[in-house]
Amino acid sequence: MSTLWKKKQTTSHPAVNKYIISKNLEADNVLFPFDIEASIAHANMLAKVGLINKEEQKDLILELENLKISHANGEFKLEQQNEDMHTAIENHLTQTLGQTGKKIHTARSRNDQVLVATRLFSKNKLTETQIKIIKLSQNILNFAQKHKAIPMPGYTHTQKAMPSSVGQWASSFSESLLDDFKIISTAYKLNDQNPLGSAAGFGTTLPIDRNQTTKELKFSKLQINPIYCQNSRGKIESFTITALLQIMETLNKIANDLVWFTSQEFNFFNVEQSLTTGSSIMPHKRNLDIMEVLRANTSLVHSYQIQTQTVSRNLISGYNKDLKITKKALIDSINITLDSISIVDLLFKNLKPNKDKLISNLSPEIFATDLVNQLVADGVPFREAYQTIGNNLETLTKQNYDSNIKNSTHLGSTGNLGIEILQKEINQLNHSIQSK
Amino acid sequence: MSTLWKKKQTTSHPAVNKYIISKNLEADNVLFPFDIEASIAHANMLAKVGLINKEEQKDLILELENLKISHANGEFKLEQQNEDMHTAIENHLTQTLGQTGKKIHTARSRNDQVLVATRLFSKNKLTETQIKIIKLSQNILNFAQKHKAIPMPGYTHTQKAMPSSVGQWASSFSESLLDDFKIISTAYKLNDQNPLGSAAGFGTTLPIDRNQTTKELKFSKLQINPIYCQNSRGKIESFTITALLQIMETLNKIANDLVWFTSQEFNFFNVEQSLTTGSSIMPHKRNLDIMEVLRANTSLVHSYQIQTQTVSRNLISGYNKDLKITKKALIDSINITLDSISIVDLLFKNLKPNKDKLISNLSPEIFATDLVNQLVADGVPFREAYQTIGNNLETLTKQNYDSNIKNSTHLGSTGNLGIEILQKEINQLNHSIQSK
Amino acid sequence: MSTLWKKKQTTSHPAVNKYIISKNLEADNVLFPFDIEASIAHANMLAKVGLINKEEQKDLILELENLKISHANGEFKLEQQNEDMHTAIENHLTQTLGQTGKKIHTARSRNDQVLVATRLFSKNKLTETQIKIIKLSQNILNFAQKHKAIPMPGYTHTQKAMPSSVGQWASSFSESLLDDFKIISTAYKLNDQNPLGSAAGFGTTLPIDRNQTTKELKFSKLQINPIYCQNSRGKIESFTITALLQIMETLNKIANDLVWFTSQEFNFFNVEQSLTTGSSIMPHKRNLDIMEVLRANTSLVHSYQIQTQTVSRNLISGYNKDLKITKKALIDSINITLDSISIVDLLFKNLKPNKDKLISNLSPEIFATDLVNQLVADGVPFREAYQTIGNNLETLTKQNYDSNIKNSTHLGSTGNLGIEILQKEINQLNHSIQSK
Amino acid sequence: MSTLWKKKQTTSHPAVNKYIISKNLEADNVLFPFDIEASIAHANMLAKVGLINKEEQKDLILELENLKISHANGEFKLEQQNEDMHTAIENHLTQTLGQTGKKIHTARSRNDQVLVATRLFSKNKLTETQIKIIKLSQNILNFAQKHKAIPMPGYTHTQKAMPSSVGQWASSFSESLLDDFKIISTAYKLNDQNPLGSAAGFGTTLPIDRNQTTKELKFSKLQINPIYCQNSRGKIESFTITALLQIMETLNKIANDLVWFTSQEFNFFNVEQSLTTGSSIMPHKRNLDIMEVLRANTSLVHSYQIQTQTVSRNLISGYNKDLKITKKALIDSINITLDSISIVDLLFKNLKPNKDKLISNLSPEIFATDLVNQLVADGVPFREAYQTIGNNLETLTKQNYDSNIKNSTHLGSTGNLGIEILQKEINQLNHSIQSK
Repeated sequence: MSTLWKKKQTTSHPAVNKYIISKNLEADNVLFPFDIEASIAHANMLAKVGLINKEEQKDLILELENLKISHANGEFKLEQQNEDMHTAIENHLTQTLGQTGKKIHTARSRNDQVLVATRLFSKNKLTETQIKIIKLSQNILNFAQKHKAIPMPGYTHTQKAMPSSVGQWASSFSESLLDDFKIISTAYKLNDQNPLGSAAGFGTTLPIDRNQTTKELKFSKLQINPIYCQNSRGKIESFTITALLQIMETLNKIANDLVWFTSQEFNFFNVEQSLTTGSSIMPHKRNLDIMEVLRANTSLVHSYQIQTQTVSRNLISGYNKDLKITKKALIDSINITLDSISIVDLLFKNLKPNKDKLISNLSPEIFATDLVNQLVADGVPFREAYQTIGNNLETLTKQNYDSNIKNSTHLGSTGNLGIEILQKEINQLNHSIQSK
Repeated sequence: MSTLWKKKQTTSHPAVNKYIISKNLEADNVLFPFDIEASIAHANMLAKVGLINKEEQKDLILELENLKISHANGEFKLEQQNEDMHTAIENHLTQTLGQTGKKIHTARSRNDQVLVATRLFSKNKLTETQIKIIKLSQNILNFAQKHKAIPMPGYTHTQKAMPSSVGQWASSFSESLLDDFKIISTAYKLNDQNPLGSAAGFGTTLPIDRNQTTKELKFSKLQINPIYCQNSRGKIESFTITALLQIMETLNKIANDLVWFTSQEFNFFNVEQSLTTGSSIMPHKRNLDIMEVLRANTSLVHSYQIQTQTVSRNLISGYNKDLKITKKALIDSINITLDSISIVDLLFKNLKPNKDKLISNLSPEIFATDLVNQLVADGVPFREAYQTIGNNLETLTKQNYDSNIKNSTHLGSTGNLGIEILQKEINQLNHSIQSK
Repeated sequence: MSTLWKKKQTTSHPAVNKYIISKNLEADNVLFPFDIEASIAHANMLAKVGLINKEEQKDLILELENLKISHANGEFKLEQQNEDMHTAIENHLTQTLGQTGKKIHTARSRNDQVLVATRLFSKNKLTETQIKIIKLSQNILNFAQKHKAIPMPGYTHTQKAMPSSVGQWASSFSESLLDDFKIISTAYKLNDQNPLGSAAGFGTTLPIDRNQTTKELKFSKLQINPIYCQNSRGKIESFTITALLQIMETLNKIANDLVWFTSQEFNFFNVEQSLTTGSSIMPHKRNLDIMEVLRANTSLVHSYQIQTQTVSRNLISGYNKDLKITKKALIDSINITLDSISIVDLLFKNLKPNKDKLISNLSPEIFATDLVNQLVADGVPFREAYQTIGNNLETLTKQNYDSNIKNSTHLGSTGNLGIEILQKEINQLNHSIQSK
Repeated sequence: MSTLWKKKQTTSHPAVNKYIISKNLEADNVLFPFDIEASIAHANMLAKVGLINKEEQKDLILELENLKISHANGEFKLEQQNEDMHTAIENHLTQTLGQTGKKIHTARSRNDQVLVATRLFSKNKLTETQIKIIKLSQNILNFAQKHKAIPMPGYTHTQKAMPSSVGQWASSFSESLLDDFKIISTAYKLNDQNPLGSAAGFGTTLPIDRNQTTKELKFSKLQINPIYCQNSRGKIESFTITALLQIMETLNKIANDLVWFTSQEFNFFNVEQSLTTGSSIMPHKRNLDIMEVLRANTSLVHSYQIQTQTVSRNLISGYNKDLKITKKALIDSINITLDSISIVDLLFKNLKPNKDKLISNLSPEIFATDLVNQLVADGVPFREAYQTIGNNLETLTKQNYDSNIKNSTHLGSTGNLGIEILQKEINQLNHSIQSK
């Protein structure tokens, strides 16, 4: 092991390295370019305050940029013997630049290095998430607009309740995603604070300029207190995963609805066959595996949230190695969420309402409340109207669903979905993202 | 049972009522005044659109206001036979107003009624939470300012790492709470949407005016889609609890630090004796039970988050009775968090740094990195300086902690805590809350 | 406050008591008789080893027995000023017996007192749970036997898969409960260890006889190490809740199946109307609230499991106040589980298969695999037979379900459910419980 | 894709395969040899009941055994195009054996195939876990025996409480592991049921002999009901992970104690340097990373438990694709637990009590309860003795720890640890494992 902390006459037991490092390199490969980016800003700052000279600055920047490219194209590989990406970077700089390389770690620690790389990564991915949420919200809204005249039974307690419509069903998810966007934005805001310069968690006696790296790395503010920088590890990751989880929960509802609504008993929607899978024993099956896996992935992201939330509990303030585990949890949660948004997007593009079945499923009792309302409109007190209809359920007959939709006039009802309001909100978010 | 849905010849099995209703009334007692508030707005709206007349409006408002007072002073009690608060309110109105009372439920369902009452409750309590967070952040900042010159060992991996200070330790929590404030604000924003008028989850064929109730109830926006209104139950509660949990996690760090830092081995702080408790068998004990209970309460609030997050998983869109469970989880989480903020506030007011012990604990090795930095300042490449000190650890001696603090000049370091920046942020939040 | 640890000149801040004690008394009321039972055994042991005399023993036993009765009939009430049940008991004994009362706490601590009371409570309730599981398993098995000839579609991926039967569906839960019984038995075994005499967590210098209390309290073994006694707090509770959770998960499957299978789209079962509830707005609704609440209760018990599992994490060995939280979690979990078993039992007694609908739902494709198997029986390699049928799905026709059941001969298949094997296992468990 | 269910004119969207299959192959590589083992038993059974002939049986067995070897030595690799291991196996048999290969899937489904492979894997690994637990329990007991005369402060509420000893501290974990062994045994018992022959979840119309495969695969019983076989997926995995989690929680206590007890403030134990790691910025640090990572791994295993417990919630009975996620959760949990047991074993072999520091930390107040007990032995009622000492704490002096240990005579106390009883239990478990 070529660790940074190896001194004369120290050796590490191989079982120790194995227990600590395993699975870490995978995460470090993802964070690597962001570690480089922060290292460049760090080197520029060191030059600005005079801790390295212009020549050293130039050499370090050049070599860091080369390294980023070599890593991207697979020439430079992280190896277990280097313990982590931070070590790999410093060792590489020392090998190529000699004494200059030994200066890169001036006034920083791996503790703030991993923090800043993770924040840059999160900001990058949360922006990608925002873009994809808006796109999905838009596509679902289009679907709602297209099918707003197709009726659909509305359920409470999994029992037929009142008339709804495909448009009302679909636009509910469009609106839900816009709320999820707000939570993602808060996660972005928490990540948008520069922890670099907090060093091991107590700052340094060297005269660094933290506002300089804040500016160069485009953070909108400095995270001031070094102990808080460390204590926010796990905290910000877990909140970020919570934000992603909210998206997953919205998608989970879509997934679960579609698993049921494409079953033979409901048969409300047809899915393009290439999105379904078969059985090894039953030749007739077309299963909506993608939505079942999505449901399971909701539990998976939740478990990452619980993990990161729990791992920092009851720990002394400051850096603790326990927090290493948060890297993989964060990266996996982001990837799963992005993939899940894509798969739902693909599904909505290949989903067709089965209009005849939807209409035939509007059985008489689903119109009971409408009949109550007609009595109410005629002046009967609501509870009396309710009793009248309730005591004569056997006389209910199927009503016209078209006029039901037409008579629903308030905002949000099947006849007035408020699509234009949601569209306006989407347009605003689109605009705000593009100007970022 | 005088349920709203009782019709001719229906009876309920007593075990059913017991299984469903138990523990619900406790939550309903908390939400009751908010249900009344929303019922008044609903009645006003019904009058505006002509579904009731002026006389009926006047009677309903008056009786609802009376009911709020009777409930507050304990004259009106929720009973199990009324199933829930919604039923109790309608039954009361019908008993006192006859036919007029039977009109209150026009164009609404208990499904949107509980949603709107919960939102009003949450908004109220989240504002209280914000006020208390700012106050606590301010008090801790004052503590930090007062003790900023007292040194304290900084720990990484629970091992002595570098010199820190009581001011740096304390202000870390002040800054943390300001981030928590942001998350609470997002929770507030999600709650600040009017679900009233979504009825059972599909709107109504009656011509209600949802913008009217939005305005009267001071929601900043309407939650448009009725299905989303129902699907956001559990979602908004779980996010609200997540926001509260972030506060609990900040307090958990304070609690755990203080449990250890007041132990005989650290002895860094003295706590006023009236805040500690004793043992039934060991006469010498003074235990910091309050901070241990706070640690446990962090797990408790987390479990409420998991519960509300999980309970709506894999459910069909629209209202499902499963979600009833979220009421107690939300109310308990808010109460625990508010109580925990108060107890930490009380503790900081009765906490004294043990300066002599803090200084004597700054053993030589804690200054190792400072000595490395001195070599760096003299031009030795960092990694070489690190090796030099690292290979001569036995020669380390205790350094002057005063000059260590003085030499720490960058923002966030012990000599430059940035208290004025945090103070400015607190002032702004205070201002924004007061103008709410 | 009349705390046991009150000494001269100590006072407690009222906020401290409120924060620590709240909600504790409710749990202590449940554990009270078990604390008395253990106190009696403790007093007998003290007499045996000579730490109290015969007279004192007699007085203590008599007064403890009286106290148990006064508490049971509501005369003796736990008050907040007594901090907890242990304090209330000792204070009562001192008030009534003077000096003798002051001897009851000899060689014990509240730490081992709460442990032993909790174990006795758990053993009692786990036995009750075992009895109720067997009874439910038996009732469901009877239901399966009765309806074994009624066909039912089998689902995979929520899609029609192969022919099943009401008997096969129901007996799956009977068998599941028998596995749950095994887990409950392990929970019982862990609780069946005597922690009394571990005192504060390190034993005592007084010459107590721990085997004596083990025997008198009918524990099958002594939990030897006092530190382990304390460390097992939270551990044994969380495992006990895990065991209860397994039952809840079995019931959750029943609940979720029935919510769907009683919906209009499936309509496989009819539930007696007195077990359903209505809607405040839709007069036609009959909702299966009890099964929705049961689903939610599964999440609730799981959250208690997570809470108790997490709360002891990262704590120093020995007693920590954090663990107080486990009392309510344990008691609630047990009550919820027992109530849930009862409600499912009630439901199965009021559940009727809708035979016509079940038969009409056996659409042609559900017999596809049977046709493959017929080709296989004729010597066609399976995968070829699968392809043949799979490429001619449009030619499938409805098959005779009676002969399908008759042709299913292997153990577990619809024609050979193995009910007699399950019955034998139930009989054995019944026998083992009765001889306990 | 060469899927088993591919028919004429069906294609799969590549995004579908990516979303479903990713990360599955890693798990399948672990389960592969167990799938082969079960396939061999299945082929033998098919021959026994006449569904294949002797020749086909011989060919299938031979090729399956070859395949196991090719996979073990890396020649045969699972590829994404084969969807899963089951498909890879059948495709391989068809390629090499033609028509005979097409018969292997007769009367089985991938649903029961993955169940049986997982059970065989779990049984194998749980036995390995049992062996390792006993070994660790023995090594810790040896450590306790060796250091039983070295005193150590005992803590409650993280505050010095009463005298304990290194032996008492260590043997608490030895006893804890023996309880964990019992839970693992229950997990083993649940896994020790044969699900093969349940096919897709409803059995088959072919005349298979399930008792035959039960016997050949050495399951101690048949899992009868095919629907329960499917419903127990997730259930048995989550219980298995719960059992592993109990071990992790025991190790977590060791880990957390040692993180603190090796800190400079406690300094109770010295750890061999090769088991510690260093810092990139602070040259003096020796961190016990392995125990911090172990603490984090406890949260990780818990999150797997929550994931598998939650994923099957609210799903319809029978196979659902959601459950695929349980494979990785199970495998990872087992690996982490086994590695964690090893690392703690290694640590105890390199751990030395720092006797002088342990003795010097026995400050006067820790003997307070002993002095109370001396008064009690002289006939003073306990509560009076407690008050007497409690009101004169300033007069306490350090007592002789040797005589304190000697005077502690009851079972479990420092003078009578009951090591021989634990040793006897270890011997019995060792014997039972070896005769398995």
